[in-house]
Amino acid sequence: MAKEITKREDNYSQWYNDIVKKAGLADNSAVRGCMVIKPLGFGIWENMKAQLDKMFKETGHVNAYFPLFIPKSFLSKEAKHVEGFAKECAVITHHRLMNNPDGEGVVVDPTSKLDEELIVRPTSETIIWNTYRDWIQSYRDLPLLINQWANVVRWEMRTRPFLRTTEFLWQEGHTAHATKEEAITEAELIHEVYAKFAEEYMAMPVIKGYKSENERFAGADNTFTIEALMQDGKALQAGTSHFLGQNFAKAFDVKYSDSNNKEEYVWATSWGVSTRLVGGLIMTHSDDAGLVIPPRLAPTQVVIVPIPKPSEEIMKVADDIAAKLKDRGIRVKVDTDDKKRPGFKFAQYEMEGVPVRIGIGMRDLANNLVEVARRDTKEKESISLDSIDQHIDDLLINIQNNLFERAKKYRDDHITEVDNFDDFKKVIEEKGGFVKCHWDGTVETELKIKELTKATLRCIPNDEKESEGKCVYSGNPSNKKVLFAKAY
Amino acid sequence: MAKEITKREDNYSQWYNDIVKKAGLADNSAVRGCMVIKPLGFGIWENMKAQLDKMFKETGHVNAYFPLFIPKSFLSKEAKHVEGFAKECAVITHHRLMNNPDGEGVVVDPTSKLDEELIVRPTSETIIWNTYRDWIQSYRDLPLLINQWANVVRWEMRTRPFLRTTEFLWQEGHTAHATKEEAITEAELIHEVYAKFAEEYMAMPVIKGYKSENERFAGADNTFTIEALMQDGKALQAGTSHFLGQNFAKAFDVKYSDSNNKEEYVWATSWGVSTRLVGGLIMTHSDDAGLVIPPRLAPTQVVIVPIPKPSEEIMKVADDIAAKLKDRGIRVKVDTDDKKRPGFKFAQYEMEGVPVRIGIGMRDLANNLVEVARRDTKEKESISLDSIDQHIDDLLINIQNNLFERAKKYRDDHITEVDNFDDFKKVIEEKGGFVKCHWDGTVETELKIKELTKATLRCIPNDEKESEGKCVYSGNPSNKKVLFAKAY
Repeated sequence: MAKEITKREDNYSQWYNDIVKKAGLADNSAVRGCMVIKPLGFGIWENMKAQLDKMFKETGHVNAYFPLFIPKSFLSKEAKHVEGFAKECAVITHHRLMNNPDGEGVVVDPTSKLDEELIVRPTSETIIWNTYRDWIQSYRDLPLLINQWANVVRWEMRTRPFLRTTEFLWQEGHTAHATKEEAITEAELIHEVYAKFAEEYMAMPVIKGYKSENERFAGADNTFTIEALMQDGKALQAGTSHFLGQNFAKAFDVKYSDSNNKEEYVWATSWGVSTRLVGGLIMTHSDDAGLVIPPRLAPTQVVIVPIPKPSEEIMKVADDIAAKLKDRGIRVKVDTDDKKRPGFKFAQYEMEGVPVRIGIGMRDLANNLVEVARRDTKEKESISLDSIDQHIDDLLINIQNNLFERAKKYRDDHITEVDNFDDFKKVIEEKGGFVKCHWDGTVETELKIKELTKATLRCIPNDEKESEGKCVYSGNPSNKKVLFAKAY
Repeated sequence: MAKEITKREDNYSQWYNDIVKKAGLADNSAVRGCMVIKPLGFGIWENMKAQLDKMFKETGHVNAYFPLFIPKSFLSKEAKHVEGFAKECAVITHHRLMNNPDGEGVVVDPTSKLDEELIVRPTSETIIWNTYRDWIQSYRDLPLLINQWANVVRWEMRTRPFLRTTEFLWQEGHTAHATKEEAITEAELIHEVYAKFAEEYMAMPVIKGYKSENERFAGADNTFTIEALMQDGKALQAGTSHFLGQNFAKAFDVKYSDSNNKEEYVWATSWGVSTRLVGGLIMTHSDDAGLVIPPRLAPTQVVIVPIPKPSEEIMKVADDIAAKLKDRGIRVKVDTDDKKRPGFKFAQYEMEGVPVRIGIGMRDLANNLVEVARRDTKEKESISLDSIDQHIDDLLINIQNNLFERAKKYRDDHITEVDNFDDFKKVIEEKGGFVKCHWDGTVETELKIKELTKATLRCIPNDEKESEGKCVYSGNPSNKKVLFAKAY
């Protein structure tokens, strides 16, 4: 095969980079840490976007759009927020270039210096809450349930395609509420939406929980998270939903008058998922032959390949099948290229993760059969033309479920309970995955564990029951087990 | 009425600003020249986007995403391009803030200065063609038919919501071809797509033509344009499609080898429409009562309002109608607010441009009737409940057509042929609209006319036949009439 990729067991990190490159998901760009999202990678993101957007709208949210730029002074208004973001900002200082007086090219025109520098948004709480002040006067103006699809920039030191890039695409919800309870309910609702999306569409099992104070979003009172597990045993934070209390309302002086004309600060949430999910999808399902995409998010769900090459008769059968599948709402492509050999094409579609491949050859056709190959297990079977559309419909569901179950089994097999620090270290070092253990609830212990093992506190699971025990590191009393893991 | 707006004849410009503000389309932001697109404005843009995206995909294009930032040196590589964009760039010079050593807040960390400044993309030809160099080797890699939905920034001196903003949203197509003919055909295809979208979806008649050399995109060999006419007699450039020749391929050294292994530079097009279209939509159809939205792009096509206020019986009828309309794919909203009076609601929905309003009152209901009001003509009629869904379906089509015909009549009435410069000035000054006349084909004349009248050469119409005549300004020979107008 022309396009071999590194095996996962040899070098997982290189395997990931190979898939991104050779399946045509993304490319590096000329700008440090910024990627080019190629049509296949963007097609997956588009399908994610469409589904999430539908789910947000079904739960009463509307889209809007706020400026890319944030005045520098806005960032400082919420103390923790500025601490979290000031160190990785793209800063705009000028607004004009001019011909280089000393030679070729253009230089910054020094007379175009801005009075106040602008920051390219790393997240939009500040500019949005500055706007909400004008939009909210009375309880009648609440709740505000607004989402934005946008690009954001964080000047990260180490970047990897999709997982951590200087610029990335995301959605950020920013809601405003009259009461604390309503805001918490909203943050929890979105937490559920994210978990449902991850499991039912990405076929990626997640653990729902909330973050320790140390791992919270900068400016939040509570951060809900969904945590997934990649095939190398490292966790991936896949989506977060924040209860922001009245922090941003106080920073930007956003008050409402209640039905008794009493003024109160507004309660807030924010929540986001990003193109990082594409990285999570790749690492959850793909194998040593290339990308594997869950059918519900695959830009092309079925590809039809004539064997050995397109003849009129075979193309007619291909077009008939394609038409039937399209009628069922299946995204299908007929390969009409007559320059490449079938073997080459098969490898290419495997690399690109197309869930189902239908091969049409003269010999099979004589028996009214076509060959159907599924990408997840690589199994092939001969299927009668009479029932091909129903078969494919069922198969796509089957693949979607199989991918989820396979990933869930791996994940469940990699949650290891420990009650002493030696076991903790051993599991993190050798087996990987989540370590479940008692923790004394202090930042000191959390940071010490990180220092010693590189594992971070991923979350305090929602469904974890209270239980008396001793912290795996300090031995101090604890009443709940939490999850640690190395993470992306 | 609580929300009066300026009348068009009193002050068209203020009328426009009032509509934007009071219909809740957009707000000014804390960042100079950047607007906040509010849910109604964004909802219109979302519908535009969905339809255009569909049309691009139907013509074989795929979406991708390229970096927000462009290295400064890239801009200089195409001589005309840098001339067109260097003077209005947001320039990033640093990547970190730090606590102010002299007091409060944060300041730019001087140690974070970038080696090379980055420009926030004003358009993406340069970064994209720098990428295409890696993607294109052989004729087999062509054509590349890629579109991007993105935000761009141009540091404009005077800004107006939607029509001209520092940051705006748009799509930009960037295609690469093996031959000149193929590239020209692509630019013309998109020109057709834009015209079809403007007329069939926005109900906004446009003139298809191409630009004079002086008005071309910076770096193009030819610029196709669609030109619309606003109600104040000023033209609006609504979409452009550029044949870029080999200019960017040469600037970024993008060659392909043809089937004989001969190397040649690649041919290019680029094309875009932006949130400016929302401004065009507002100004084409709206009236002194507020916004008017063509049904095909209206976020809410039908609103159902109980009169005098929601009772159980009325709500049941409302929900029944809504369900029937939804079944037909109509976007319908039932107003369940029992705090506001119907009169207030009616004015509000008029302001927001909802194409059809259904009022349900007890008296009408006793006769099996509801009141249907159309936004475009403000006519009302009583319609039987038995045929309400079919009636609404027909009415929406009727409104869409009526808006187009009304706008087309206005536009056609405002194309005035002149053959001397006194008439030219008189028409531009008094009547407005397009002036059709002979022009000698020189930049000098074009600029002189602009200087004297503020009218610019909008386009050389596609369907204009050759005819012998004398330039309206210079008296020099001309073989084709062109269109001048004052423009946004």
